[in-house]
Amino acid sequence: MTELPAHVDIRDVSMRDGLQIEDPIPLSAKLELLAAIAATGVREMEATAFVSPSKVPALADAAALAAELHNFPGIEFSALVASPNGAKRAIAAGLRSIEYVVSAADGHSRANVGRSSAEATAQIPEIVTIAHDSGASVEVIVATAWDCPFDGPTAPQRVLDIVRAAVDAGVDRLAIADTIGTTTPRRVTELVTLIRSTVGGLPLGAHFHNTRGAGLASAYAAVTAGVTRLDASVGGLGGCPFAPGASGNIATEDLVYLLRDSGIGVDVDLDAAIAAARVAQSAVGHELPSSLLRAGDRILG
Amino acid sequence: MTELPAHVDIRDVSMRDGLQIEDPIPLSAKLELLAAIAATGVREMEATAFVSPSKVPALADAAALAAELHNFPGIEFSALVASPNGAKRAIAAGLRSIEYVVSAADGHSRANVGRSSAEATAQIPEIVTIAHDSGASVEVIVATAWDCPFDGPTAPQRVLDIVRAAVDAGVDRLAIADTIGTTTPRRVTELVTLIRSTVGGLPLGAHFHNTRGAGLASAYAAVTAGVTRLDASVGGLGGCPFAPGASGNIATEDLVYLLRDSGIGVDVDLDAAIAAARVAQSAVGHELPSSLLRAGDRILG
Repeated sequence: MTELPAHVDIRDVSMRDGLQIEDPIPLSAKLELLAAIAATGVREMEATAFVSPSKVPALADAAALAAELHNFPGIEFSALVASPNGAKRAIAAGLRSIEYVVSAADGHSRANVGRSSAEATAQIPEIVTIAHDSGASVEVIVATAWDCPFDGPTAPQRVLDIVRAAVDAGVDRLAIADTIGTTTPRRVTELVTLIRSTVGGLPLGAHFHNTRGAGLASAYAAVTAGVTRLDASVGGLGGCPFAPGASGNIATEDLVYLLRDSGIGVDVDLDAAIAAARVAQSAVGHELPSSLLRAGDRILG
Repeated sequence: MTELPAHVDIRDVSMRDGLQIEDPIPLSAKLELLAAIAATGVREMEATAFVSPSKVPALADAAALAAELHNFPGIEFSALVASPNGAKRAIAAGLRSIEYVVSAADGHSRANVGRSSAEATAQIPEIVTIAHDSGASVEVIVATAWDCPFDGPTAPQRVLDIVRAAVDAGVDRLAIADTIGTTTPRRVTELVTLIRSTVGGLPLGAHFHNTRGAGLASAYAAVTAGVTRLDASVGGLGGCPFAPGASGNIATEDLVYLLRDSGIGVDVDLDAAIAAARVAQSAVGHELPSSLLRAGDRILG
């Protein structure tokens, strides 16, 4: 029988990855959603991103949202950045946990940030210095870790090279992301196994989308292979609003259900997560793909 | 790294489990769907059920459908039965592969067939005799193998007892079914591990619903634990039509995608399965929960 971790840290990414492709919603609605998610007991949340407001209008209120985060003590809030300048803005806004995304595939990297993967990787040390000089921590997230929407499959060696550069630069945490929701458990096991020794003692996270139905299968494969941190969003927020039924991030409540029934401890309460998913659904005004939101919990023994 | 089987047999259950709770559709529409599924290359299909037509009006045409199956050579068609009388009707209609369902939980067994689990188990030898005397094969499917909608969790020992009775009676195949879509990979691994030695050399199948999002995760756990046969339906047909978005069986195309990318051989062509899912969607007249139907295949390397 495979050995499973006693506990997995869930980071709720509803506020950033969940909302970023939705039509912008008012700050007051965001704070209501944030409060509902905070009530689940989750210890970490991705609050927003400090990126170009013209590219991601839904997150243009990043600084205003950041100014409200002190109202939710006990939660570690992080913000995604794509450049040293973004890191400076995040820190100036009060964030103490920075996520720096590096695409392993050049096609996605150029489309997303206008730089090659190697150029984005080369900026890791500068980001680490900016963050650490301010007492903030840095996580490097390797995007398109399995597939790129432009280049197709990502060579695992490209992921390993970024992981090694990040470790050498002194990052505090690492994560690998299935940006377009194509991976499957076997590929997850293989990639985690490949990078695990290079990651060493640093916390290793994974980020899955359920676009092809395998998000939870991949998440379970990740935790059996040594991942102890998983991203998720309430309701599975994050699907493209122009493709009805298309799935976004794995749903927090579906993940909590699976982990609980696998004997793995989590900080998130299932009923509260379902309640937060309802708040998310009403905030964005369309149906979300979560399963537990519809089916509810099973009868427990 | 876990060892995976080189090949998994997929049985498409669209025609029975997929359609049974839908409004009845005309035989001509069924045959169009059946032809589309046959074109996927699948080698086994659950064609219908010989049960009470008043209880399952969507399958009241079982004998008429059975009379058409000779038009699809090369596919092994099976029919579900819930009693010796059903087995006789299936065989009289020309079926050569019988599935006898026994609920491990008394609550579900009584609600479904008006008998206790032990009473249903006691009929296995009679079913086997009826089938074998006619040259037909018998698979015993243990329903509510993890949870019952009335009784809650099913004690694994109850499943093991039915498996042992079935093996002793000389059945040809065994399967365990997550009837209400509640199980998760860890529980799958545990139950398969528990029964595997009793199953011995007989083919062991598993049947999952994606009701709580973990269907594919459970299927993958099953094949890593020794299951070599999986049920699925095109489009994920089988969800309750009165609960929009509720998931039914795991979708054939989603399963094929996951298995292919895990290096596991299957007989079903992915593109043809997606095409059949479209036929299914139009046959039932509402959106189906399949992921691949929306997202399509990834870019292959």
